[in-house]
Amino acid sequence: MTLRWSLGVDVGGTKIEVALVDGDGRVVERDRRPTGAAPDPAGVIAFIVGAARAVGAGSGAAAPAVGVAVAGQVDRAGVVRGAPNLGWRDVPLRAELERALGRRVLVVNDVRAAGWAEWRHGAGRGSDDLVALFIGTGVGGCIVSGGHMLEGAGNSAGELGHTTLVAGGRPCHCRNRGCLEAYVGGWAIAERAREASRAEPAAAGGLLGAAGALERITAETVAAAHAAGDPLAGRLVCETAEYLGAGLVSVANALNPERIILGGGVIEGLPELVAASAAVARERALPAALDGLAVLRAALVVDAPVIGAAALAREG
Amino acid sequence: MTLRWSLGVDVGGTKIEVALVDGDGRVVERDRRPTGAAPDPAGVIAFIVGAARAVGAGSGAAAPAVGVAVAGQVDRAGVVRGAPNLGWRDVPLRAELERALGRRVLVVNDVRAAGWAEWRHGAGRGSDDLVALFIGTGVGGCIVSGGHMLEGAGNSAGELGHTTLVAGGRPCHCRNRGCLEAYVGGWAIAERAREASRAEPAAAGGLLGAAGALERITAETVAAAHAAGDPLAGRLVCETAEYLGAGLVSVANALNPERIILGGGVIEGLPELVAASAAVARERALPAALDGLAVLRAALVVDAPVIGAAALAREG
Repeated sequence: MTLRWSLGVDVGGTKIEVALVDGDGRVVERDRRPTGAAPDPAGVIAFIVGAARAVGAGSGAAAPAVGVAVAGQVDRAGVVRGAPNLGWRDVPLRAELERALGRRVLVVNDVRAAGWAEWRHGAGRGSDDLVALFIGTGVGGCIVSGGHMLEGAGNSAGELGHTTLVAGGRPCHCRNRGCLEAYVGGWAIAERAREASRAEPAAAGGLLGAAGALERITAETVAAAHAAGDPLAGRLVCETAEYLGAGLVSVANALNPERIILGGGVIEGLPELVAASAAVARERALPAALDGLAVLRAALVVDAPVIGAAALAREG
Repeated sequence: MTLRWSLGVDVGGTKIEVALVDGDGRVVERDRRPTGAAPDPAGVIAFIVGAARAVGAGSGAAAPAVGVAVAGQVDRAGVVRGAPNLGWRDVPLRAELERALGRRVLVVNDVRAAGWAEWRHGAGRGSDDLVALFIGTGVGGCIVSGGHMLEGAGNSAGELGHTTLVAGGRPCHCRNRGCLEAYVGGWAIAERAREASRAEPAAAGGLLGAAGALERITAETVAAAHAAGDPLAGRLVCETAEYLGAGLVSVANALNPERIILGGGVIEGLPELVAASAAVARERALPAALDGLAVLRAALVVDAPVIGAAALAREG
């Protein structure tokens, strides 16, 4: 029996999806369309309004609450300050959707929505102190402490991918050097693999075979070559686990969570990183921070943003 | 007019102090004694009980609330799990003080008490999102987000000194390598200065002159030689600002505070580290994290633990 339906919307770089989500975090019905290049906000809003009516009708409820996850920086007023993959700057998404739908709408960053989903319905369920780290091409995070999701003064808390892991180290896509993302993000794993293949051509056969050419080596190539037993890929995975583990030490010591949840495409491709990085953290974090700590794989994967946005809307 | 007095107690490695603190965070009266080596908990409790009566009498109030700051790990039940400088393990300080005083007592870690003091009465006053970093021999921190002081699942949140700054880097006194503390803590500055003096004897005259001998070089020596214009000390201070700045990038990006407050003996000796590390952070942190961020020097210095413990007791 699920009485409290709500609508979760995911406005991402590849697709826009509207899902009806039940009170247990299950997607009951959904509609989606490809995002397309530089989508016009008005067109996106029109799609959401239409899909919300059609998908929402299945609930039998007149007007379920609406939560929207956006791949970009969102302020507390629901304005999308910047979303590079959409080409959006300062789009007042919440105000425009509220006008179009005639009801209250919540707009949040998609990583925070995914973290909310893991907290309410996934690997974080039942805990009041958790950190979720999503490792895809980039690395994002969110922090729940004492039952509060941290927002920060400007609603941008949780950028754990851009914490310094190696002062003065590898250049990051942000302005810093040596960020966690610059070692374990998908783009960084690919970069490290290409550098290693260039430096050791004799050892690079597996990676080159899997990718076709050095320039085409990606994090997926590394995962595939590692699965096939390639030693260079194996070393890259080990080093990635070391870097991620050193990052988990920071998370554990600074925030003392009960659970650290690891998700995202890199973790899906290399799930062994969960146990391997947890082992590194267990050797090096403070005993007080390790007491009762579990490092877990994320449970909800691709549906996390719509599930989290829907959960937020239901509670908000 | 200050109506809400409370008592703040600081049980530290060098002194035990009982202070009557007014509602504006001012110390009105105090009593103290040296801690001594391996102090017996019963003797410390007896001193606190006597001093609380004498000092508290000045308030005119019958029984002001009591907060105790301890240099060690304290659990939520007020048990001192470990305090290396006192030689204490598993001392039920709260229960014993409550029995002896006949009223409710709060016991907290001294760094968290100092952070609470800065939040309520110091450089963090009026803000709901701040991080305080205390850089003495060791480095401790505390985090306030959305008006909540982060405690963590096991009450040990805030160990920002033991976040990884250089993966695989300098050995820390904890089990990790490359901690922030292993670069900017007082012991680490001293170690780095001794290494530099050993590596470049021709440049080490200023440091050796200030210390008397290489083995006696401390963070204070570096500050003194830097004040006298010594180039090697100047380089060590610059490098320390770089490391600290790289750490502030992490704090800003992960937590998005409105204020970062820097205190402790190293900052008192080298106050220029505040502006220099803030400049590094301003170049490298995410624009969203920098928007509205102020990096400030702590305001309360040595009295912070008693002021914070008293403020906590008043509010708790």
